Amino acid sequence: MPKQTKTAPKNRPVPTKRSAPVAGVSSSTAAARDDIEITALDLPMGKLSPEMEAYFKKCDAKLGFVPNVLKAFAFDDAKLQAFVDYRQELVQNAASLSKLEIEMIATAVSSQNRCFYCITAHGNAVRQLGDPVLGELMVMNYRAARLSKRQRAMLDFAVKLTTHPWEVEEEDRAKLRRAGFKDRDIWDIASVAAFYNMTNRLASATDMRPNSQYHAQAR
Amino acid sequence: MPKQTKTAPKNRPVPTKRSAPVAGVSSSTAAARDDIEITALDLPMGKLSPEMEAYFKKCDAKLGFVPNVLKAFAFDDAKLQAFVDYRQELVQNAASLSKLEIEMIATAVSSQNRCFYCITAHGNAVRQLGDPVLGELMVMNYRAARLSKRQRAMLDFAVKLTTHPWEVEEEDRAKLRRAGFKDRDIWDIASVAAFYNMTNRLASATDMRPNSQYHAQAR
Amino acid sequence: MPKQTKTAPKNRPVPTKRSAPVAGVSSSTAAARDDIEITALDLPMGKLSPEMEAYFKKCDAKLGFVPNVLKAFAFDDAKLQAFVDYRQELVQNAASLSKLEIEMIATAVSSQNRCFYCITAHGNAVRQLGDPVLGELMVMNYRAARLSKRQRAMLDFAVKLTTHPWEVEEEDRAKLRRAGFKDRDIWDIASVAAFYNMTNRLASATDMRPNSQYHAQAR
Amino acid sequence: MPKQTKTAPKNRPVPTKRSAPVAGVSSSTAAARDDIEITALDLPMGKLSPEMEAYFKKCDAKLGFVPNVLKAFAFDDAKLQAFVDYRQELVQNAASLSKLEIEMIATAVSSQNRCFYCITAHGNAVRQLGDPVLGELMVMNYRAARLSKRQRAMLDFAVKLTTHPWEVEEEDRAKLRRAGFKDRDIWDIASVAAFYNMTNRLASATDMRPNSQYHAQAR
Amino acid sequence: MPKQTKTAPKNRPVPTKRSAPVAGVSSSTAAARDDIEITALDLPMGKLSPEMEAYFKKCDAKLGFVPNVLKAFAFDDAKLQAFVDYRQELVQNAASLSKLEIEMIATAVSSQNRCFYCITAHGNAVRQLGDPVLGELMVMNYRAARLSKRQRAMLDFAVKLTTHPWEVEEEDRAKLRRAGFKDRDIWDIASVAAFYNMTNRLASATDMRPNSQYHAQAR
Amino acid sequence: MPKQTKTAPKNRPVPTKRSAPVAGVSSSTAAARDDIEITALDLPMGKLSPEMEAYFKKCDAKLGFVPNVLKAFAFDDAKLQAFVDYRQELVQNAASLSKLEIEMIATAVSSQNRCFYCITAHGNAVRQLGDPVLGELMVMNYRAARLSKRQRAMLDFAVKLTTHPWEVEEEDRAKLRRAGFKDRDIWDIASVAAFYNMTNRLASATDMRPNSQYHAQAR
Repeated sequence: MPKQTKTAPKNRPVPTKRSAPVAGVSSSTAAARDDIEITALDLPMGKLSPEMEAYFKKCDAKLGFVPNVLKAFAFDDAKLQAFVDYRQELVQNAASLSKLEIEMIATAVSSQNRCFYCITAHGNAVRQLGDPVLGELMVMNYRAARLSKRQRAMLDFAVKLTTHPWEVEEEDRAKLRRAGFKDRDIWDIASVAAFYNMTNRLASATDMRPNSQYHAQAR
Repeated sequence: MPKQTKTAPKNRPVPTKRSAPVAGVSSSTAAARDDIEITALDLPMGKLSPEMEAYFKKCDAKLGFVPNVLKAFAFDDAKLQAFVDYRQELVQNAASLSKLEIEMIATAVSSQNRCFYCITAHGNAVRQLGDPVLGELMVMNYRAARLSKRQRAMLDFAVKLTTHPWEVEEEDRAKLRRAGFKDRDIWDIASVAAFYNMTNRLASATDMRPNSQYHAQAR
Repeated sequence: MPKQTKTAPKNRPVPTKRSAPVAGVSSSTAAARDDIEITALDLPMGKLSPEMEAYFKKCDAKLGFVPNVLKAFAFDDAKLQAFVDYRQELVQNAASLSKLEIEMIATAVSSQNRCFYCITAHGNAVRQLGDPVLGELMVMNYRAARLSKRQRAMLDFAVKLTTHPWEVEEEDRAKLRRAGFKDRDIWDIASVAAFYNMTNRLASATDMRPNSQYHAQAR
Repeated sequence: MPKQTKTAPKNRPVPTKRSAPVAGVSSSTAAARDDIEITALDLPMGKLSPEMEAYFKKCDAKLGFVPNVLKAFAFDDAKLQAFVDYRQELVQNAASLSKLEIEMIATAVSSQNRCFYCITAHGNAVRQLGDPVLGELMVMNYRAARLSKRQRAMLDFAVKLTTHPWEVEEEDRAKLRRAGFKDRDIWDIASVAAFYNMTNRLASATDMRPNSQYHAQAR
Repeated sequence: MPKQTKTAPKNRPVPTKRSAPVAGVSSSTAAARDDIEITALDLPMGKLSPEMEAYFKKCDAKLGFVPNVLKAFAFDDAKLQAFVDYRQELVQNAASLSKLEIEMIATAVSSQNRCFYCITAHGNAVRQLGDPVLGELMVMNYRAARLSKRQRAMLDFAVKLTTHPWEVEEEDRAKLRRAGFKDRDIWDIASVAAFYNMTNRLASATDMRPNSQYHAQAR
Repeated sequence: MPKQTKTAPKNRPVPTKRSAPVAGVSSSTAAARDDIEITALDLPMGKLSPEMEAYFKKCDAKLGFVPNVLKAFAFDDAKLQAFVDYRQELVQNAASLSKLEIEMIATAVSSQNRCFYCITAHGNAVRQLGDPVLGELMVMNYRAARLSKRQRAMLDFAVKLTTHPWEVEEEDRAKLRRAGFKDRDIWDIASVAAFYNMTNRLASATDMRPNSQYHAQAR
């Protein structure tokens, strides 16, 4: 178990409603609180398998922290493992989407669903992999970004799939093909957009809070 | 690899736009076509691992067919495995939701997203586990069903999470708790609803077709 | 008055709120309850004119039951007569729409309005006149059906007229004409779509329940 | 056939698209054009039955004109008769709603659907039966009117039934009962609101134009 | 201070909720009440600067009354002055939009936002500058008006900017340019539409009531 | 005219469509481009009055740059002056709202309208006046912030006024009063929310770009 999780108990139930601020608590403490009260549910972290414990350590070494979404899943090691594997296969193992493109989809989708956790984490990734202003544009309104035809088509598909999935038809796939995407890419774009429609809802349902470290990085 | 997939090539690209019917093809042939042209993408089924091949055989033995969603994932065995595992852990391993309740959530969520594949498959499951009229009500309008307070609260949460995830707040969780749900149940309800928001979008993005056998069962 | 209405009193007020299930009542009883408590309003069936009594008998002979919408209107014979006549003239007397096309419009419109009664009754009719899977597609998402250009244009017009009537303009009529429809057909498509926008709302306002027999037919 | 229909041919197809104004045609001519080109469809008025001919004469004598909706239906006398009868029974024969209340519902519903014909005709009626400012409020935003609790509940129900019929439930009927309405009144409010949801769509589908005389009356 | 404001105290708090009608108060009195209880806020008119006092007198001389929006701002002379100046510069000083076109935008925008005050005041202006039926069309549904290509493009832009500002892109500006508008005109159309999106919200937030005199004028 | 505007010509027309990226132009150059091509309109900066020239210098001295919105208005000195004055009176001269609260409203409103310029500029202000995470929360979803009852009521009112102004009624004002706001505060909250609904639309209509310096500040 990573060091910082020892001193700060995870997933403790929120003692008061979110709308009730704690008197005398300064803003920076409030931000820090997000690192302690990760969700609104009382689901204490369980025992991690050696594989997941190693994965947490790897995250900590690389990022300086374990992403809160992983800690939120850690009340059940089997669920955590399945989540990590699924994300690896369905999001990260895209055939020809770049890491930046995957994060652009993740952020634009999460912005439609106004998910605090996911916009924060993936907006950060776009800033890191692309540039700071591109990250902001994915958060605020991807239509205002100066995108290549390929990236615009990719995001139009992902956002329509988010807001009006029942209206996605052959013509939408044809637009992706005209922008140079292959059928495997259409699967990957859909798969990434669909995945974040899932995590957005899991995060919103549980009031999942992003690690405070994300906010200041790569600005 | 199950027998019927040998004689009928999977995932062949749709030769014409869906809106163009094949002249001289009767309705029952059209339904059968759903069992052959599973998606609008040309992603031929790959080699299955022994584990997944066994799983397909198990499905075939139990259901009389392999659900098309599994065949759609089968172009990449690792993705298929991750999907099956994730669904097992995040949907089926709910602590205290019944199988019927899980399928009620799946159907009501899919109805909001008007996903042909998922409404068909999970509406069938509600008919099987509950009763035929309950299945229809989950497909058409869950609000018209005569539900227990528990089930109504569960579906209200799942549907709000589907349509307005950004408005889900502590009061929504409080309603679930007042209806008798524990924090673990809130996670499970959210997890199931979120999962089908994902599959709905993957199915709509690829025009995934449900196995024709679903339609007539348990009426 | 048809025979079965003697033994089962009609339109009795719902004794408890729909959301409160009757303990110990099995599912099949719940379905049967729809045949007894036809609406949430206490409007007992009045005396039928000889013409309407004959019409009810004709329905019973042909269908095996009198559709609940007719019983719901039967608290006032003059209203019932006007409804039957209007439906005959404005829906059934279409110049060149087939019976199947009329029912496809009825079901697709009712699906937009998520009306339990009308989706059930007209989805059944599409199954009977067309085929079972076409019926399900009209219920779930008409865009996923493999339709002729004519039928797709017809449903696009009917559904836009349902959801955004204020945006219907000359270009929408031009699309129908390009698909081969005459001005009289445009009237008929509009008339049918408009009629079910009316009945959907009357049914939803009164919690009208479809006859239980519809569900299992033509699967 | 009424006299004025001889000199001015009805229902002639619109020669040019609505968006193309006729150069050199003044505004007042444009208004008058609404009395000649009643709809965008080429459905010439047919032979009226003696009953309908008498009804047209009665309208002309009472109002100074035959409402264009009746002329639009007059391409088929049987449809016209059914429409007039249905409106009589389902709208005008309300048990305890006043004529003004019926017109308030008609106008508020038509305002939601932004139907030029129906807002014009029924806004006029509210001005005549109520007062000019009340008519404007029903057209613009019924929520801004200073209404009795009874009338506010009536319009809230009618408007919800118009915009979100699938969300109308027992609690909505309970609100009407708490405002003093009986079950028969609930039927009548629903019936009137549903009827205008139908006519709004028929008018929008055909670009039906209101008689020019409505605009200046009762101001 | 204009004469009529002495005998009728301004901005007195609404003594009862709007939904509670004053028993025994006739309709015409209700309309008159709008001239006395201008908003739902208790913000008594302050001392006007000589410039604003002169402006009020000028309004009174020209219109026969001081528009209530000006009286609503008059609790603070500096705010009133800034509002009058801003409206002059950003709305009235358009380079090549006609007065009628400015009022058409104002009315169509206000209709989208269903603002009683602004639809009333600007619908009147369209009736005065254009013709009575054009005024009604801007209030009810601008799409039903027979407009020139220029005016239709102008209103399409203004209404999209009102309802979906985040989707306005280069293609929308291109449509205006193709309809003959210059860049300065695009600024002016946007500026007018944006201004009424502001006043609509200020009026709705405060339940601002239009002067009763507007309703009957120019019919 | 401020110094930096000499070396970099303002408001030059965008040479290519936004969706076409300039090949070989790095990300940081793209950000810098926002400081040169301020809007999509070709409205070159005009001669500033001494007062406005002084104001620009003051901005430059204090912020290190002149906000682009001011440069966008500077094609017409009178419009610029009116805008600056109006913003001073209607936004900044609030009676009892803090500077932070004004910026919170501005950001939450702009987030609803997904306006790149305004979210960027006012999100920065919230970060400066409040704290970095609060700024992000106003951008992403104000409902996820841990707010005082007062601030939550204030933002609920401002956001409802943004998205559904026609539904704002006495009960909404009552909620503000119960949270401790006076009538003057209700005016101010409405005035600030309304103002940014205006600027959001002006910015979106013209594709106004925020100064690149905003993005990195106060993180």
